Amino acid sequence: MSSPLKSPAPSVGLIGFGAFGRLIARHLAPHLRVLAYDPFVAQDAFGPDAVPADLATAAACPVVILATPVSGLRDVARAVAPHLRPGALVADVGSVKVVPAAILRAELPAHVAILATHPLFGPQSARDGLAGLKVAVCPVRGRRGLRAAAFLRRVLGLEVILTTPEAHDREMASVQGLTHLIAKVLVRMEPLPSRMTTRSFERILEAVEMVRHDAPEVFAAIERQNPFAPEVRRRFFALAAELEAELDADRQSPRLALAR
Amino acid sequence: MSSPLKSPAPSVGLIGFGAFGRLIARHLAPHLRVLAYDPFVAQDAFGPDAVPADLATAAACPVVILATPVSGLRDVARAVAPHLRPGALVADVGSVKVVPAAILRAELPAHVAILATHPLFGPQSARDGLAGLKVAVCPVRGRRGLRAAAFLRRVLGLEVILTTPEAHDREMASVQGLTHLIAKVLVRMEPLPSRMTTRSFERILEAVEMVRHDAPEVFAAIERQNPFAPEVRRRFFALAAELEAELDADRQSPRLALAR
Repeated sequence: MSSPLKSPAPSVGLIGFGAFGRLIARHLAPHLRVLAYDPFVAQDAFGPDAVPADLATAAACPVVILATPVSGLRDVARAVAPHLRPGALVADVGSVKVVPAAILRAELPAHVAILATHPLFGPQSARDGLAGLKVAVCPVRGRRGLRAAAFLRRVLGLEVILTTPEAHDREMASVQGLTHLIAKVLVRMEPLPSRMTTRSFERILEAVEMVRHDAPEVFAAIERQNPFAPEVRRRFFALAAELEAELDADRQSPRLALAR
Repeated sequence: MSSPLKSPAPSVGLIGFGAFGRLIARHLAPHLRVLAYDPFVAQDAFGPDAVPADLATAAACPVVILATPVSGLRDVARAVAPHLRPGALVADVGSVKVVPAAILRAELPAHVAILATHPLFGPQSARDGLAGLKVAVCPVRGRRGLRAAAFLRRVLGLEVILTTPEAHDREMASVQGLTHLIAKVLVRMEPLPSRMTTRSFERILEAVEMVRHDAPEVFAAIERQNPFAPEVRRRFFALAAELEAELDADRQSPRLALAR
């Protein structure tokens, strides 16, 4: 476990090797040595893109990525904190940013820089590569995060959107909140038609396919840990109910719609 | 007005020259002489794809297409009926099929064939041509409609789906009912984010763009004249409410979601 540390290649510590951790490893492996820690993954299941490491080793890298569900972020931050080196950069990749930024600021030692990030894609939408995909980036502490953002842009080809945790969560409450809400409802309505379909309906089904296999933690974070999500849901349901009432009213007192 | 009748070129009568009538004319004009009747369109506004005609002339063609809103179909069918020639084929293009098929069967003389059709596209989704787009086709009376279906497939490159009015309306209650319902609600929520967007959210916005400029009559037909639409809406709202209740319940008694 200590040999990777002796290597002169730049290394990144990856804490968490779930679906998104694997995606990160695949795209960083060509450029960096990825030391991955995940106590729930067998040593022989890390594949070719990551070197399994213990927590202390992975957390001692110059860059440490916390690829854990938002719900587990505080415990993970506490676990890595004692092992972080002065001047290191710690980044998370959660789907919300207000809560994680506050957790990282509170739990990580003052001698590390913090970058809160949200890659606006998942294993499904990144199937054909990362180029042109978007990542939201919030520098929470220190300036090292901007160098990392430049790497994401220049080396990985991502479109980097510099923002704040609050601005991010506000927009994402609509973008992800609505997408996942609509997708969840449509999945519950299955089987849906697949033969007589319109282009527009096909687009909606494509959106459902992209998020239907997301980990339950992603939906939980989007709907429950984004402070602006309940308001967006409330508006969606209120407007839907308004529309339904209009349709009902028209049905009860049918105007005789004649030829023009 | 009578000169087109003297022409030996095969001619089609187009009753109604709204957005969809224009789309039909554009794609039929290279193959057929299109005689269009629409009392609400100025004579000089028919463009290069159609010859303006009076009702009697247009309705006397071997093939007559009723491109009117479903709400006006009965009056239009009554108006054309006296002018139809024995052996002619009459087709509608409405977004629902149970109600129009019944109207056409009741209002048109026994000596004409009837084909109820629903092109599963509109001016937006047909912008790049018709090839590969779908059209649902229900032979209501006579066999002439099958020849027309072959024309749609071979000459226009459409994917022809042979079905019945009831099977059509059942599927479309989900396909169009859900698409337009979701689109209407999202349009009412505008402005929606456009910077930090995910691929899945972009797909949904594309669907919204495809239907947002549809004539109000299209939405009215889809939601109010499809006998299966209310049930689909009811299920969508019930499942959405169920999901909302689940999220609320979780919020009120928060499980402390710990790191895995």
